[in-house]
Amino acid sequence: MTDNKKIILTGDRPTGPLHLGHYVGSLQNRIKLQNEYNQYIIIADVQALTDYFDNPEKVRKNVIEIAFDYLAVGLDPNVNTIFIQSLIPEIAELTIYFLNLVTVSRLERNPTVKDEIKQKGFERSLPAGFFVYPVSQAADIAIFKANLVPVGEDQLPMIEQANEIIRKFNSTYKTDILVEAKPLISEVSRLPGIDGKAKMSKSLGNAIYLSDSEEEVAKKVMSMYTDPNHIRAEEPGNIEGNTVFTYLDAFGKDKEAIRKMKDQYRVGGLGDVKVKKYLNEVLEELLGPIREKRKEFSKDPAEVMNILKRGTKIAKENAEKTMSEVRREIKLDYF
Amino acid sequence: MTDNKKIILTGDRPTGPLHLGHYVGSLQNRIKLQNEYNQYIIIADVQALTDYFDNPEKVRKNVIEIAFDYLAVGLDPNVNTIFIQSLIPEIAELTIYFLNLVTVSRLERNPTVKDEIKQKGFERSLPAGFFVYPVSQAADIAIFKANLVPVGEDQLPMIEQANEIIRKFNSTYKTDILVEAKPLISEVSRLPGIDGKAKMSKSLGNAIYLSDSEEEVAKKVMSMYTDPNHIRAEEPGNIEGNTVFTYLDAFGKDKEAIRKMKDQYRVGGLGDVKVKKYLNEVLEELLGPIREKRKEFSKDPAEVMNILKRGTKIAKENAEKTMSEVRREIKLDYF
Repeated sequence: MTDNKKIILTGDRPTGPLHLGHYVGSLQNRIKLQNEYNQYIIIADVQALTDYFDNPEKVRKNVIEIAFDYLAVGLDPNVNTIFIQSLIPEIAELTIYFLNLVTVSRLERNPTVKDEIKQKGFERSLPAGFFVYPVSQAADIAIFKANLVPVGEDQLPMIEQANEIIRKFNSTYKTDILVEAKPLISEVSRLPGIDGKAKMSKSLGNAIYLSDSEEEVAKKVMSMYTDPNHIRAEEPGNIEGNTVFTYLDAFGKDKEAIRKMKDQYRVGGLGDVKVKKYLNEVLEELLGPIREKRKEFSKDPAEVMNILKRGTKIAKENAEKTMSEVRREIKLDYF
Repeated sequence: MTDNKKIILTGDRPTGPLHLGHYVGSLQNRIKLQNEYNQYIIIADVQALTDYFDNPEKVRKNVIEIAFDYLAVGLDPNVNTIFIQSLIPEIAELTIYFLNLVTVSRLERNPTVKDEIKQKGFERSLPAGFFVYPVSQAADIAIFKANLVPVGEDQLPMIEQANEIIRKFNSTYKTDILVEAKPLISEVSRLPGIDGKAKMSKSLGNAIYLSDSEEEVAKKVMSMYTDPNHIRAEEPGNIEGNTVFTYLDAFGKDKEAIRKMKDQYRVGGLGDVKVKKYLNEVLEELLGPIREKRKEFSKDPAEVMNILKRGTKIAKENAEKTMSEVRREIKLDYF
């Protein structure tokens, strides 16, 4: 938590354990950035409840699962501030003041929210909490004065929305206490599910979890989508859209070996089972140590909760600092 | 703050000093109820900011003005809990969880909000904070477990909305920790402005303030709307819609004298000036002592802020208690 480092805000909604898609899309990047930046990693249980308000047990359970995942992949709680959103009520407080700075029609135009409303089939019965969650996200970003927020392309409108609110706050109260955030766009393209569908996700049932056992991973790899027309090993096969090769590109370290396998697959003479076995080895090389570390941490959940407690304390202190500045600007610093 | 008393939640938005309309419509009633009930009186600065987010100085200034008014009319800070809304961030926190329990289309149908949107000319540029303020009000009510909320007829939909959310919370989380509130409908009809318009209000410029000087009151009374066709004292005049008589009915103690004046006014021989002078005496009897007490309190604003500080401390302790119950029900009681 040394200073002069730029601040990153990142995190996950605790709605399920993390999978290889998270690893490729964000965890890997966080590990890379953790020493260079002051990284706030939010376990966004309040946001998860906008979807799962009627299933809080699910959210509660996944908070610690995600913490296990974080620690297992090597996110260091001594250089990152890992914390639980609901324990920072200052975010709720700032959200309430931010709600005055955005119009209903602006929220209706938010493309990310529009998409998600459609995806989740909310339409007529859209919970107000879901409708205003971009404002809560703006509060997450603003309260920690994040300079950078890692996002996928589809999340860019959320950052724009947050910055609009931050600018409106600063201009309304003639101040510069809040800081606009820049998006840090992930270079890695999205990892497809094992069924070849565009996105690995819990709801699609096509994910390999960081917490999967060796047997589960092997079984999932063996069932992966390849080239449906590549029936016999001797025949030529397609690399494009072949999930096994997409994964090898994402996780394999021996690029030369992979290039050779691709060549052979294209001309014929390399069977899917052989490639899958190789991918399984590659994944095990990554997941094996993660699984071991995860097992260690799972043995002592109380200690992991202590880690979250310490991170939450630091996050809360910083949130309090920003909120006391915000209150001063809105003239609510009575006593 | 003794127990077993039913809990009332009431209060005002600090957007201007209180006037005779407030006195008749609510203050009088609060004084009557203050010993029988455990009365929480909220100075709703957060709600005031949904309208005046770009003028926080106005809100800030009126917080203490309203406190002067409360104390001057005889609201006893030792039996009432008088507090400042923004200093109870637990309300914001509960609001965020309540937002998950109400749909956007339900908020759009709220008749009180619909009316106010029209009145304030918001329409297209409706701030989200204003749109969701019924949810914040539900949180105000729920967090103090209010049994009764004094309201005018036009505010009934707000109580219904709050109770819907409270029921939804209890049924979703299979609990009974939150308590539905009953409306306590004011028996007194609304006091018209001195111009005879239906409502005394700051924005219409037709109000007599509790903080007005003797001269200001006299001047306002002399300018009051009477019977526009009653030009000469000798001629008969109308009582109906005659604001001076409406005020006499509301504030005069000598009902017999007022009855006689009405009779004489109806048949002719009683001039407006004479009735107004009498009304001025009647109002002075009420306002004189209030003015004196107000002057005393204004001399020591620090002490008045201390009174608010003490009330706020009690309110916060109770809000914290409810929020820790709420967090337990939503499974967010991690540590």
